[in-house]
Amino acid sequence: MMKHILGYRCTLCGAELPYDERMTCPHCGEKGILDIVFDYNYIKKSFGRAALAKDRTNSMWRYAPLMPLEPRDFSPFLRVGWTPLYTANRLSAELGLKTLYLKDDGLNPTASLKDRASGVAVAKAVELGYDTIACSSTGNAASSCAGNAARMGLKTVIFVPQRAPEGKVAQLMIFGAKVVSVKGDYKATFELSKAAIEKYGWYNRNAGINPILTEGKKTVALEIAEQLNWEPTDWVAVSVGDGCTIGGVYNGFHDLYALGMIERVPKILGVQSTGCCPFVDAAREHRPLVPAAENTLADSIAVGVPRNPVKAMRAVSASNGAWIAVPDEEILAAMRLAGAKEGVFGEPAGVTALAGVRRALQEGIIKSGETVTAISTGSGLKDVKNALRAAGTPKLCEPDLAALDKSGIL
Amino acid sequence: MMKHILGYRCTLCGAELPYDERMTCPHCGEKGILDIVFDYNYIKKSFGRAALAKDRTNSMWRYAPLMPLEPRDFSPFLRVGWTPLYTANRLSAELGLKTLYLKDDGLNPTASLKDRASGVAVAKAVELGYDTIACSSTGNAASSCAGNAARMGLKTVIFVPQRAPEGKVAQLMIFGAKVVSVKGDYKATFELSKAAIEKYGWYNRNAGINPILTEGKKTVALEIAEQLNWEPTDWVAVSVGDGCTIGGVYNGFHDLYALGMIERVPKILGVQSTGCCPFVDAAREHRPLVPAAENTLADSIAVGVPRNPVKAMRAVSASNGAWIAVPDEEILAAMRLAGAKEGVFGEPAGVTALAGVRRALQEGIIKSGETVTAISTGSGLKDVKNALRAAGTPKLCEPDLAALDKSGIL
Repeated sequence: MMKHILGYRCTLCGAELPYDERMTCPHCGEKGILDIVFDYNYIKKSFGRAALAKDRTNSMWRYAPLMPLEPRDFSPFLRVGWTPLYTANRLSAELGLKTLYLKDDGLNPTASLKDRASGVAVAKAVELGYDTIACSSTGNAASSCAGNAARMGLKTVIFVPQRAPEGKVAQLMIFGAKVVSVKGDYKATFELSKAAIEKYGWYNRNAGINPILTEGKKTVALEIAEQLNWEPTDWVAVSVGDGCTIGGVYNGFHDLYALGMIERVPKILGVQSTGCCPFVDAAREHRPLVPAAENTLADSIAVGVPRNPVKAMRAVSASNGAWIAVPDEEILAAMRLAGAKEGVFGEPAGVTALAGVRRALQEGIIKSGETVTAISTGSGLKDVKNALRAAGTPKLCEPDLAALDKSGIL
Repeated sequence: MMKHILGYRCTLCGAELPYDERMTCPHCGEKGILDIVFDYNYIKKSFGRAALAKDRTNSMWRYAPLMPLEPRDFSPFLRVGWTPLYTANRLSAELGLKTLYLKDDGLNPTASLKDRASGVAVAKAVELGYDTIACSSTGNAASSCAGNAARMGLKTVIFVPQRAPEGKVAQLMIFGAKVVSVKGDYKATFELSKAAIEKYGWYNRNAGINPILTEGKKTVALEIAEQLNWEPTDWVAVSVGDGCTIGGVYNGFHDLYALGMIERVPKILGVQSTGCCPFVDAAREHRPLVPAAENTLADSIAVGVPRNPVKAMRAVSASNGAWIAVPDEEILAAMRLAGAKEGVFGEPAGVTALAGVRRALQEGIIKSGETVTAISTGSGLKDVKNALRAAGTPKLCEPDLAALDKSGIL
């Protein structure tokens, strides 16, 4: 029993359960995703602004007291988190926004925010004595799982849909994972991984099942708050696929609010592509989610059947935030904007939050006088094809000055 | 006049010159690459171990007092440096080495060590009031120049050889650079950039010309020393192309030694591919460099005519180090090793240092009881094709458990 955890609470039926190795609610089955309930009064005794001010750990492991893990030395793990939060003056001027920050989570060890979840999952697997960890993923969760596991000597079995981009698959292979490239979509991939995990008894890193993953992803919110000296922006924008990341963002701010470390939870803007926006559609029509098409080039958020709907919907509603969808062309435009204005190269799903901020401004959801943080969730190097689609390819030039002058490049 | 700089010294003729905007020696011409001579007695007054222990800056900008720059607020720049130094226990056991550290410089903002040079170059261009910065590059210098410049609102003109990998070119385009893809090799690319820079008066970021770049790259050595609590390893291994990076590694340790911050300069292992090893050949035959073929998949170090031979040769000789060449197959093997054993995904030139350590151990140059740091100079995401070549592609599997069991993947 961990002293800083009170137990589980089911996000569907509200049942309270003891904290153990279970991953979902026994009453609700697979859809009964659990919340981990922390004992903030216990945590407060040793964790807070003052303790953090003295802590030189420059990674997410500085927030270990807020993770569902036993205390340990985290220095052997990959250095996840503590990514830069850039003041984006040129970009905010371009968008007509008072203040914009860009959180570049593509600078994590395997180049995406998913390292935050995988780091915690690997730590948990090590804590529990597993030798293999498995997951299904559109790509980033997979490569982060494989990389974080490799660093700690764990084996990995990874299920990816056939359409996963080359860069993400290359990472998996280099990290020595056993990779199952599934002939089918994300749903089929997830189902196969579920069956195999049940059969073989591997540690389950599936984001829609394992409640600790949200508690890793929440560290991005903890960092944003600390990097802004505990005065987060009015809005925090994040792209949404499975729903686990936005759920984590909310949990992080909620934790800080419950601990008295921030005075308010920012409004959370959930952003999807119009080509795959089950959350946006459900929110607009005030109904539960229904399976959606997966027609977006932002592969990391092309999730037609999100596995974490409750945490995601709650993130927006409890924070008084908003849902918005942007077409793929605006995602590609956001790639160019973040790159050319701020030197931040995000993958399509990475810059989708920024595209959402732009559109939310146009629609009056975000006011120009408000302050905003946009989270870039992954590096553009993960998906070079779409980067070239966004930015074009360079012109060839003969190696002489006269040719250069005539080329029209300058 | 900067108080912490005494002047220039030509690496060829030894002439001492005042510190100004010049980039090469007036007596020796283009090959007369300059050293910047620092006033260590002046620097000592305010910079040292104690000052650094109090400094929370988690980037290379913590070493600004050792850079050829006027003091300024560096927080608007990209967050370059302070990359992780991992204790690589699984890898050292595999290699039969007492202690091995991996410095993952692929976790820089544009995913390579070159950000250290580009950051300083962009800061200098801003300091001097330029609005455009230009360079030629096999890829990483280019993308780092473009990214760091974009962040500060500078325009960039970049010359790349036609063979530059897609990932690196994609970065350039996204960062809004004017890209000249030159029909020819690196030498032809360099010559065209030189002519154009002369004609148009842009700030020159060419690593073989501009002496401040070495002073940016040296921060990787400063970090290694500080991260090892001012007791660097017996050896530091680094891959070598143009010669600027290894020159910087030596300069960094030399600075620390001159300042009394470390007790000895580590032996530096310069590693090249056997497919392009002008330094290794010259050192073995005790003769000056001659142009070499560029037959290696490690594109970042495929430099047949290195522009910084003197600083590179000095780094090895003055540190009592060694030169070594490794075949491409051993570079690909090192990619797999670093990935599977430590969760570090380096590009071919990135892991070449590690391949060199392995070979140097086999050849008795490095003893198994010695301590070693291998610098990984760039992310494997820069060059996915070679990663897939190193690790293979995954097997496809029908979405059912029976098919998985039969697939042989597990």
